[in-house]
Amino acid sequence: MLLPGPIQNMITAFARLPGVGPKTASRLTFFLLKAPDDLADEMAASLTALRSKITYCQVCFNITEVGKEECEICESKDRQADVICVVEDPLDVLALERTEGYQGKYHVLHGTLSPIEGIGPEDIKLRELIARVDQGGVTEVILATNPSMEGDATAMYLQQQLLPKGVQVTRLARGLPVGGDLEYADQSTLLRALAGRQMMK
Amino acid sequence: MLLPGPIQNMITAFARLPGVGPKTASRLTFFLLKAPDDLADEMAASLTALRSKITYCQVCFNITEVGKEECEICESKDRQADVICVVEDPLDVLALERTEGYQGKYHVLHGTLSPIEGIGPEDIKLRELIARVDQGGVTEVILATNPSMEGDATAMYLQQQLLPKGVQVTRLARGLPVGGDLEYADQSTLLRALAGRQMMK
Repeated sequence: MLLPGPIQNMITAFARLPGVGPKTASRLTFFLLKAPDDLADEMAASLTALRSKITYCQVCFNITEVGKEECEICESKDRQADVICVVEDPLDVLALERTEGYQGKYHVLHGTLSPIEGIGPEDIKLRELIARVDQGGVTEVILATNPSMEGDATAMYLQQQLLPKGVQVTRLARGLPVGGDLEYADQSTLLRALAGRQMMK
Repeated sequence: MLLPGPIQNMITAFARLPGVGPKTASRLTFFLLKAPDDLADEMAASLTALRSKITYCQVCFNITEVGKEECEICESKDRQADVICVVEDPLDVLALERTEGYQGKYHVLHGTLSPIEGIGPEDIKLRELIARVDQGGVTEVILATNPSMEGDATAMYLQQQLLPKGVQVTRLARGLPVGGDLEYADQSTLLRALAGRQMMK
């Protein structure tokens, strides 16, 4: 049996989302068919608003609402302007903000260097970061790219670019995750934890 | 940091879908932000179309496009009109159609009897099924409700209602699922498989 067009379209659209296979897509579609009227409308409105009302901050490239030049964090006078934390994605900003342990500014690269996928320094917001440092007033750049091959390569590249400019360049600590189990830690995490062991005072 | 309103709304909308928690919801939202322009638009259009272009078949209550009185299956002259397969949801029709092993018609109940949740015979499409049988021309009703407590109770109720009308009432076979492992089958499945054992010819 061919499904009616509108249902098939909805399933196809859902299936394009990451982590949503054809089965989940049809489950979601049929759920929406039976769901209270407002849910599908609310989703449709949210989707339209998402693309039309969200833009990127012209300073740090984090997400912000259309009409604002700078995001809330860049605008804020309460945050340290001399520390920049470099992350890959806006979601990483969110994760760091949730810790409530960081008071500086951010810079969102929107990706990592990846020669295999053909992503070079021009394809992510690297030049913009270096320009921010060149403007002066920055004392420390914290590299908070992901602890992956691409994240590490990007951090290394940035380190080479930034060190000659006289700023302090740091990298988030590696080691055992809190609540983790030594027994289940992978070899390279354990090696890093060992190499980065700290004096107990 | 507070997320911009449009992003927060999208996350809230996604999180109302079944099986989507707040983390998945924000992952999907940020994916859509970066996704090619057409995806969010396509989803928004699909959602609107879903509610405005889909309705229920007036005979079997399966989904069909607005403007059609009957669904494709009810309209079809190639399908046996004297066999009705009773299912809980439109998704169940889809599952049975995928088998390509059924050539009769359907009847979608849109739920099951559930005294605990206060769902009685009037709340699902039971009366409409009985009316179809009363119209005549039906020789067999296959009860294909889910093998759950509510599905079984609904099947039992239907059996009581339909048997006096002189139609054959059947129920889908219970037993070990194909590809399943006897060792991991639960007790009641195994009991059913044992009770329903079949002669090898």
